[in-house]
Amino acid sequence: MNKNFTLKKTDSLSKARAGVLKTDHGEIQTPVFMPVGTQATVKTIDQRTLVELDAKIILGNTYHLYLRPGNDVMKHFGGLHKFMNWDRALLSDSGGYQVFSLKDNRRIDEGGVEFKSHIDGSKHYFSPENVIETQRILGSDIMMVLDECVPYPSEKKYTADSLKLSLKWAKECKDYWTEKGPMWGHNQMLFGIGQGGMFPDLRREYIKGMLDIGFDGYAIGGLSVGEPHDVMYDLTDVSTDMLPADQPRYLMGVGTPENILECIERGIDMFDCVMPTRNARNGQLFTTRGKINIRNKKYQFSDSVIDENIDSYASNNFSLGYLRHLIISKETLGISLASQHNIAFFLHLARTAREKILSGEFTTWKKDFLEKYLNI
Amino acid sequence: MNKNFTLKKTDSLSKARAGVLKTDHGEIQTPVFMPVGTQATVKTIDQRTLVELDAKIILGNTYHLYLRPGNDVMKHFGGLHKFMNWDRALLSDSGGYQVFSLKDNRRIDEGGVEFKSHIDGSKHYFSPENVIETQRILGSDIMMVLDECVPYPSEKKYTADSLKLSLKWAKECKDYWTEKGPMWGHNQMLFGIGQGGMFPDLRREYIKGMLDIGFDGYAIGGLSVGEPHDVMYDLTDVSTDMLPADQPRYLMGVGTPENILECIERGIDMFDCVMPTRNARNGQLFTTRGKINIRNKKYQFSDSVIDENIDSYASNNFSLGYLRHLIISKETLGISLASQHNIAFFLHLARTAREKILSGEFTTWKKDFLEKYLNI
Repeated sequence: MNKNFTLKKTDSLSKARAGVLKTDHGEIQTPVFMPVGTQATVKTIDQRTLVELDAKIILGNTYHLYLRPGNDVMKHFGGLHKFMNWDRALLSDSGGYQVFSLKDNRRIDEGGVEFKSHIDGSKHYFSPENVIETQRILGSDIMMVLDECVPYPSEKKYTADSLKLSLKWAKECKDYWTEKGPMWGHNQMLFGIGQGGMFPDLRREYIKGMLDIGFDGYAIGGLSVGEPHDVMYDLTDVSTDMLPADQPRYLMGVGTPENILECIERGIDMFDCVMPTRNARNGQLFTTRGKINIRNKKYQFSDSVIDENIDSYASNNFSLGYLRHLIISKETLGISLASQHNIAFFLHLARTAREKILSGEFTTWKKDFLEKYLNI
Repeated sequence: MNKNFTLKKTDSLSKARAGVLKTDHGEIQTPVFMPVGTQATVKTIDQRTLVELDAKIILGNTYHLYLRPGNDVMKHFGGLHKFMNWDRALLSDSGGYQVFSLKDNRRIDEGGVEFKSHIDGSKHYFSPENVIETQRILGSDIMMVLDECVPYPSEKKYTADSLKLSLKWAKECKDYWTEKGPMWGHNQMLFGIGQGGMFPDLRREYIKGMLDIGFDGYAIGGLSVGEPHDVMYDLTDVSTDMLPADQPRYLMGVGTPENILECIERGIDMFDCVMPTRNARNGQLFTTRGKINIRNKKYQFSDSVIDENIDSYASNNFSLGYLRHLIISKETLGISLASQHNIAFFLHLARTAREKILSGEFTTWKKDFLEKYLNI
């Protein structure tokens, strides 16, 4: 029983669920898409626009924020909410994902991982205890345990050894957190992460280990790392089959609109991905009629707005011709409008999925939506 | 007598004036600062934020917009207002300034100037007729004549020869405009430009020539090009002494806050400058306490907002510490907030000057303002 999470409805034709996750910075209706604000900003979008788009929760990256502005600055300002003037919910990762992706610049041992900063090459060490300490300073409403996201592909032996270490770290994270508690007077939740590479049995073992320790919610990590989509979907299925119904479930770093809908269908509640903002920088727009690249010459004279089905300033107030001009001319406003629209699209996707779960139409809606989206 | 311009008050202690310039896209209270939107965007700031900051008029650059998106696209969209979704006033320059600054990539003759595009090296030709034609297509509320902005420093002989050619072009611009009239159903005004380098007698001769042709307003060009500030102020004085009281006066490309106040005092009504947005990109903020560079380490722990005396979202909602973090981390939001604040500051400056002219306190206010601004 999780006092912060209430399951409102489970779809009769699938594992899709609608719920509410309570934080001290507002309620989050699930399924939810969480925009990524790596360095204390969702790239190119200001905070009042995020509120207008009705993002209920955004992410901060512990690795980046630990290096810059650093824990001393973050502590001085009273945590990430105050630092960036954001009074809605925040989720922070543990920093592990970024550190492990530094491949040649990190060294793992029993106690944690040593790494070199990508900014100035300085040496640092992440341990279960200090990544929780950093997240206490951030004051994120949802914190994540330190774990190793094994590379894809990895041998079973490597993945199994990693499992043992990550479970040990997860326990140490929980112990440190239990001892210390929150820093800023508001509640913080701690989520466990199930890894296990591409091995269903290891995925199950991992989740069992996490459930034994006991967390406020459970994430699935190490997917969407290059494996075929069907494998991702199957392993998500394996994972949600084991996860208790009354706990929130978070699929980390996923993904495309179709990934998100498929995984909502498999019982996932929470998603995050850099795709809306990263792809906007290359001129890619997600629309209800499918993906388009605004750099394409065919949009030069287009009077159409980006997407009349999406309710946002960026989506409805500018022609594709104008947006193309801005992006071709390397104007920041173009990237910002594209980012705002893409974020609006992903939020709309999860929000509509929830409405359709509640109204009992999820499966038909999903089919219709994907037909329009994929058949451009 | 200019039906579009009404002089409301002239200061009793100086030549400072408060007026109203009527356009078909709204009234402009003068003195006014006009943000520069070179490529159909005031860099990093969206249109609704410009409305919120209460910019009454912004600039577009004919050279840039002619090359990209090009006249065919602009015509398709029904002009610049519709293209960029901006229903307030617009001013376009003639493109001459940018073309003449291409030094090695332009060749001047009696009929106009041939130049190579900075984008793809393609050859183009600007004539008095076709720069007016481009500005008809843009549909700018205020158009400028083609002229040569002589380099600084220039010989008197060169400047005098340039004068003759520019006056010829100005007459040709006016004739073409008189024949053609507006393209989109709303009124467009055509302003003449007084050049004359650093020579008071040539400045006078130039303005006399412009007045003989007769325009809807008069600009002073070719200042703030490297000359000492006192020379700029003196030549502005020489120019405004000759200009009729019932015509709007525009000092092109000027300038710093102190330049603007000094030239308001000398009877200028309109200003534009890229400084607020360009300097924001380097971390420079204009505040009522003076200029600061937000990259300075001393702002790392600063809880102060940018400027509590300036009423804008960017000025009042974020700490200097957060803004510094964004700029140091190369986050676009930092540049956008700094740009928004700087534009708000320049708009505030001209707006307050107007209030003080109307209340008869301009001279004392200007002294107080500059003392606080310069003595940081």
